[in-house]
Amino acid sequence: MNTSKKIGVYGLGRFGRYWADLLSQQFTVIGYNRTSRPVEGITLAEREEVLGCDALFFCVSISSFEEVLTSCADDIGEHTVVFDTCSVKSYPAQLMQRLLPEGTEMIATHPMFGPDSGKHGTAGLPLVFSPLRCSRETASYWRDYFNLLELRVLEMTPEEHDREAAVTQGITHVIGRVLGELDLQPSPIATLGYHKILEVVEQTCNDPFQLFMDLQHYNPYTHSMRLQLKESLDRVMQDLERADTQI
Amino acid sequence: MNTSKKIGVYGLGRFGRYWADLLSQQFTVIGYNRTSRPVEGITLAEREEVLGCDALFFCVSISSFEEVLTSCADDIGEHTVVFDTCSVKSYPAQLMQRLLPEGTEMIATHPMFGPDSGKHGTAGLPLVFSPLRCSRETASYWRDYFNLLELRVLEMTPEEHDREAAVTQGITHVIGRVLGELDLQPSPIATLGYHKILEVVEQTCNDPFQLFMDLQHYNPYTHSMRLQLKESLDRVMQDLERADTQI
Repeated sequence: MNTSKKIGVYGLGRFGRYWADLLSQQFTVIGYNRTSRPVEGITLAEREEVLGCDALFFCVSISSFEEVLTSCADDIGEHTVVFDTCSVKSYPAQLMQRLLPEGTEMIATHPMFGPDSGKHGTAGLPLVFSPLRCSRETASYWRDYFNLLELRVLEMTPEEHDREAAVTQGITHVIGRVLGELDLQPSPIATLGYHKILEVVEQTCNDPFQLFMDLQHYNPYTHSMRLQLKESLDRVMQDLERADTQI
Repeated sequence: MNTSKKIGVYGLGRFGRYWADLLSQQFTVIGYNRTSRPVEGITLAEREEVLGCDALFFCVSISSFEEVLTSCADDIGEHTVVFDTCSVKSYPAQLMQRLLPEGTEMIATHPMFGPDSGKHGTAGLPLVFSPLRCSRETASYWRDYFNLLELRVLEMTPEEHDREAAVTQGITHVIGRVLGELDLQPSPIATLGYHKILEVVEQTCNDPFQLFMDLQHYNPYTHSMRLQLKESLDRVMQDLERADTQI
């Protein structure tokens, strides 16, 4: 494939740096960050130059995306293809559709990996891919690129993503945070199941707390998942309390 | 070691059959079950003969142990060493100390494995070992035997076991049952953490429901664990609800 494109990465937090580095294996990549502090291995550029690249990836927090996008919308290049990389999809997809100029091509993505899970390569890792408004050629170019990285490209609508993620990501993170508060320790009598519980806590609580809150708040389906989870816990607790008083 | 002993196994449910089979690699084993239906590979014997063996392992449910022990106490041999194999320890230990004749030697054990986890051999699997009332020779004979099976013998008091198990076993099983009610399904966008959650559900919900209830009810420390778990869930839920209304 033709990889002579110039790619801009907006937001150079931990994920943005990882993403810029990954893209730079095929493309010329320039990055922009609010703070203009140098970032090892990434060529920084002026905001306008980054916003005018052939493709532009936003790697900012979900909760800051509206503000960032509002401030950037008018300066994005006419032929720039815009991507978000947020861990929820309906909300940023709606923002892009509402805030970007009418002709701008846009694709919502959720790379479901990062510097930790991707450190031994990207083969087999999942990437959710939702072309929102773009030509068939643009969608197919980027699909081919992600396939070139041997990613598992999962094409679905933002709503399909969020409905699934409310359960898979959502429940896992709530359970991890709830158990994280209990300060669980390794034990000589740990069962296999308990080891898995500890791993869930470790993985979820290593992510920034803001990401946890954003995943819950900006996914429209997490609220009902949480209600179901709470109802189920209450039911199990009641069964156990009843048994404790009856037996 | 001298393995000319004759061992009785009382209760031939799934675990009892597995346990009898394991012991029969070294010892002569006879079994007894309420129903006198033949069990493949196990020599059945009269109740009195089983209760009079050199060692007697009770492999019955926690909730039936008091009734079983009460009905057996007077018929247990004078020199029989009595073991329980329950997944909680304080409660059966108290029962044995209260109900067995004064001179009877007794050891509480919790083999933390079974026909599934032990199907590829017993090396490295944990066994909790609590000599309650027995000579140093008796304790050391059985410790040696379990070491011969290459089990990881964990010597602790019944209270130490239950305090640890309320967290390790207890939390794992409550989480597994709570999530089991939600009918979670595999998903194309499953994360590694979600896979672990599914494994916890599968493992815990495969155990009999009665075992789950008994583990919770007969371990004196699970009640406070459950309160903490519920408090933590309520706190996380409140934080999330607050964020949903504020942002």
